[in-house]
Amino acid sequence: MHMSTNTLTVELGERSYPIYIGEAIHHQAEFYRRHITGRQVMVVTNETIAPLYLDETLSALSGYDVATIILPDGEQYKTLETLNKVFTGLLEHRFTRKATLVALGGGVIGDITGFAAASYQRGIPFIQVPTTLLSQVDSSVGGKTGVNHALGKNMIGAFYQPLAVLADTATLNTLDERQLAAGIAEVIKYGLIVDSAFFSWLEQNMDRLLSREPAALAHAIEVSCRCKADVVAADERESSQRALLNFGHTFGHAIETGMGYGAWLHGEAVAAGMSMAANLSHRMGWITEDDLQRCCSLIERAGLPIQPPAEISPDRFLQLMAVDKKVLDGRLRLVLLKGIGQSVVTDDFDHQSLLETLESYQ
Amino acid sequence: MHMSTNTLTVELGERSYPIYIGEAIHHQAEFYRRHITGRQVMVVTNETIAPLYLDETLSALSGYDVATIILPDGEQYKTLETLNKVFTGLLEHRFTRKATLVALGGGVIGDITGFAAASYQRGIPFIQVPTTLLSQVDSSVGGKTGVNHALGKNMIGAFYQPLAVLADTATLNTLDERQLAAGIAEVIKYGLIVDSAFFSWLEQNMDRLLSREPAALAHAIEVSCRCKADVVAADERESSQRALLNFGHTFGHAIETGMGYGAWLHGEAVAAGMSMAANLSHRMGWITEDDLQRCCSLIERAGLPIQPPAEISPDRFLQLMAVDKKVLDGRLRLVLLKGIGQSVVTDDFDHQSLLETLESYQ
Repeated sequence: MHMSTNTLTVELGERSYPIYIGEAIHHQAEFYRRHITGRQVMVVTNETIAPLYLDETLSALSGYDVATIILPDGEQYKTLETLNKVFTGLLEHRFTRKATLVALGGGVIGDITGFAAASYQRGIPFIQVPTTLLSQVDSSVGGKTGVNHALGKNMIGAFYQPLAVLADTATLNTLDERQLAAGIAEVIKYGLIVDSAFFSWLEQNMDRLLSREPAALAHAIEVSCRCKADVVAADERESSQRALLNFGHTFGHAIETGMGYGAWLHGEAVAAGMSMAANLSHRMGWITEDDLQRCCSLIERAGLPIQPPAEISPDRFLQLMAVDKKVLDGRLRLVLLKGIGQSVVTDDFDHQSLLETLESYQ
Repeated sequence: MHMSTNTLTVELGERSYPIYIGEAIHHQAEFYRRHITGRQVMVVTNETIAPLYLDETLSALSGYDVATIILPDGEQYKTLETLNKVFTGLLEHRFTRKATLVALGGGVIGDITGFAAASYQRGIPFIQVPTTLLSQVDSSVGGKTGVNHALGKNMIGAFYQPLAVLADTATLNTLDERQLAAGIAEVIKYGLIVDSAFFSWLEQNMDRLLSREPAALAHAIEVSCRCKADVVAADERESSQRALLNFGHTFGHAIETGMGYGAWLHGEAVAAGMSMAANLSHRMGWITEDDLQRCCSLIERAGLPIQPPAEISPDRFLQLMAVDKKVLDGRLRLVLLKGIGQSVVTDDFDHQSLLETLESYQ
């Protein structure tokens, strides 16, 4: 069987790195060997992923001096304490600053491992093998690594780039439907904020994505990563351009917080949040009724919610959004649409229209 | 009274920063105001330093939204757990990524605070106010920040540069004599490895340093920082040039480990280590008997040891040095002298001469 691999290069000067996208690539030795320079490799994964993919990864790494750390699965373990377990493992194996970390898992594993790589002996290389659609399209680009603090999510971390990313579409076969849809929410986001042609492609190929057709998944991952890389490129750090990536997230975070973390998946909350942002954009007269319909219809076809939960009142919404970090100097900024594939970060929207949007779901 | 301030700029492109060196500068508002851009400032200090200098620092920061964290004093608190206390304080005060940290204290405070700044919300600015001679000449340049792990010192951290360093010679008046001498050991090191003129100046001015004459201290700090900056400049990260800064440290670490950490101050162990390295350099015929005498005599005049403790046998020394991180691929590399102000990193020394050096102290 011939399997093709797409390679997308994230351009960051001397820190540029490739994202390899393809079917069954995470157990092919060559993708690791190209990048690993030392002998020592530590695979960091979790209890859910290890039984599924660890053996294949280890066989691809045969010949290296390999150790493994299996962390508990879940956002609640994305802490300094868990991070310290990675350091302990590295030190117990006497791993030097020439060791390479391999992050095998979803966003939490990628964030912890990336930060461990950034901090161990002040920085060692790492390779990301994201195993969820969300982490393949989101964590592969941008260099954000870190852990949560009891008083805030993602409050501790570093900007740190991997040597390479291996996005293997085969690992998506074990994702449950809700997790797959949550990843598709972020994919739709890229179409909406910067790429109308990709949005049209998604309208025509949603069924192929939902049936996990490898070529369709690979295309969606590649375009999403390229969109994100383009947005991030101008400014590797937080900037107003980068804020476009938060489309749907201010409403979405309000849903996640309002319902208690974990009740809604992040991607589900973002999906409803994107519909709400499109609704407000339409009320402002910035997008047509037809665009609004296309937006909601595509989100719905992915099996995602297009409405917030009725139990969050408009007042509570406003309260929750006001503490979101996108509020600068007391003015609520939102990412809104000026068309499909066109977005802006703005505080220049009508407060009455925002209220009407919120009330329309009651 | 007229007080002059010397400014040394550490050249690192867009991350260049000034080191201000002078008498009573840490309570002058202008040195902070020049660099702080936001409103929020968190001063991180410890229980020993707070009663001595915190009030002055806080008065210099009047007008800002200032909070303070007072950590316990001691290397044993240089941990992830203590680091997390800084994050907790920042989050409890709702400090954003526009907040600035001020590290008021010695090396431990500087290392923890620098790493907190590197990691809080993936990086916020910080200002260093080192209050020991060792931290003024050592931590002011090089960007090394971090904490210890139970299994190894300085194993977790980041390269991260401050906005500015305020080296106030007045804070040295409260140092005890042993601490002052330990700082002078590192000062002597710079003369020995790269600056023979500075070494001569130290021979002529050691008494002024020991009596804490502000102008003499300021000169010694400035030249030491410049020497270190020159060595680090070519390669901001670890390199063979940077390894020159480890002069005396391989022998010194063996003494520290062999005696149990804390029995000898780091600077005391380095002082004996520098004598030992000079002794070996002389045995190799690389420096004259006169140079060896000058070296030992200056170290001794600073009140520092020129011999290792007799209880560490030559065999034990070799064992302790073999695990030092300067051992690459099984070959022991040492920093040795080719003259006063001339040093090399080399494994090209005679093993028999090393043994003779070690045995000469029995």
